[in-house]
Amino acid sequence: MRNQNRPRHSQKVKSDFAIVFDLDGTLVDSVYEHVISWKRAFADEGLHVPGFMIHNKVGMSGRLMVRQVLRETRQRVSLKKMKAIEELHKSYFSRMLPLVGTLPGAQALLDRLSSVGVRWAIGTGGDRKAVAAQLKSLRIPDSVPVTTGDDVAEAKPEPEIFMVAAERLGVRITQSIIVGDSVWDLLAACRGKALGIGLLSGGYCSSDLERAGAYRVYKDPADLLTHLEELGLPAD
Amino acid sequence: MRNQNRPRHSQKVKSDFAIVFDLDGTLVDSVYEHVISWKRAFADEGLHVPGFMIHNKVGMSGRLMVRQVLRETRQRVSLKKMKAIEELHKSYFSRMLPLVGTLPGAQALLDRLSSVGVRWAIGTGGDRKAVAAQLKSLRIPDSVPVTTGDDVAEAKPEPEIFMVAAERLGVRITQSIIVGDSVWDLLAACRGKALGIGLLSGGYCSSDLERAGAYRVYKDPADLLTHLEELGLPAD
Repeated sequence: MRNQNRPRHSQKVKSDFAIVFDLDGTLVDSVYEHVISWKRAFADEGLHVPGFMIHNKVGMSGRLMVRQVLRETRQRVSLKKMKAIEELHKSYFSRMLPLVGTLPGAQALLDRLSSVGVRWAIGTGGDRKAVAAQLKSLRIPDSVPVTTGDDVAEAKPEPEIFMVAAERLGVRITQSIIVGDSVWDLLAACRGKALGIGLLSGGYCSSDLERAGAYRVYKDPADLLTHLEELGLPAD
Repeated sequence: MRNQNRPRHSQKVKSDFAIVFDLDGTLVDSVYEHVISWKRAFADEGLHVPGFMIHNKVGMSGRLMVRQVLRETRQRVSLKKMKAIEELHKSYFSRMLPLVGTLPGAQALLDRLSSVGVRWAIGTGGDRKAVAAQLKSLRIPDSVPVTTGDDVAEAKPEPEIFMVAAERLGVRITQSIIVGDSVWDLLAACRGKALGIGLLSGGYCSSDLERAGAYRVYKDPADLLTHLEELGLPAD
């Protein structure tokens, strides 16, 4: 008889640990498209925000990002305008989607985890529509839980997204490995008492990720794939 | 009688040291537009290059960038295709120029240096046409030397661009402060035995810039402006 707690995409669970992946900058190469889309959105509302100030906030929820950027640049706008900026970003980003591909090794890493019996899920702050569009470039089994910003009350750096994702795998967050490219992922991992792993593929540097609590930092999914044993996971 | 060694934009030279500024990511907010333009250019030629791999090479000459990216992603293309990628990048970048503004405090910093008698110049690897287009957003006195990639044989990280820029100010590179946002600027400063200063406004992190030899790292030109004394320069 089938164990209902086991994910359907893997018949043979070989590890007590599960992995929850962030999406943007971790599995798909979308961070720079987000930066430009946010920059355009702010500019349309008369706000000039330098790219680097946006970049180091990608991974936060859209709402938090806008509030933080406004505070940092000492600008104030109405709530209506803040919402308009969020909508503009979504619109600009959807137009850039053709440029967004998977990161090196992303598909191979996910396939390998499934085949060696390590449960995995995706937990991302993006809204359901944008996430669905980006997941088209990856082959994700229907059974893999995908938790988005629309599914939770508290966005990253709160750990709720990762916590819900782990629960859907039937694993506690404290038994999970969280893989992300931004300090917000690692802060969320830290708050959830999960093991945090950083990837450089979102453009953060290793020392920022390490200082934010990353146990290990790899270049991209391909590099992580060659180091599964370092995380105490079966590799084949 | 006028001292011909003194720059025309400042009647009163008060410091033996001069400053040579990089342009992209240092005075103008163009790094993320360069990343997207390169990504599009590579994609048009059938090469998928992740944004972060491009980002950490912005500041190199276009030719070096293309060669390095190809080696890193283990792809080979003809010389003709490499040149086509460079041209495509220029074309895409020129279309994104309306989004490129000055970085916070850039104009105020340059104006202050002129008024307190610190000589300064611009030394950038960009081609003359792109540089001229970007300088439109800044008020640069005609007398300020602007050295571009078209003026020298060896691009960054060779120190030639900065060396020529300093010479045009009548100052040796060893008596110059080089301000840049990338590790290539700092490697060039190091090779030229100049004092290197890093800015975070190109999206590199402080530890990468410090490890590449930055004497100090500031957030952006506005932050550098409030710390001129730290560099042993007159501030008012």
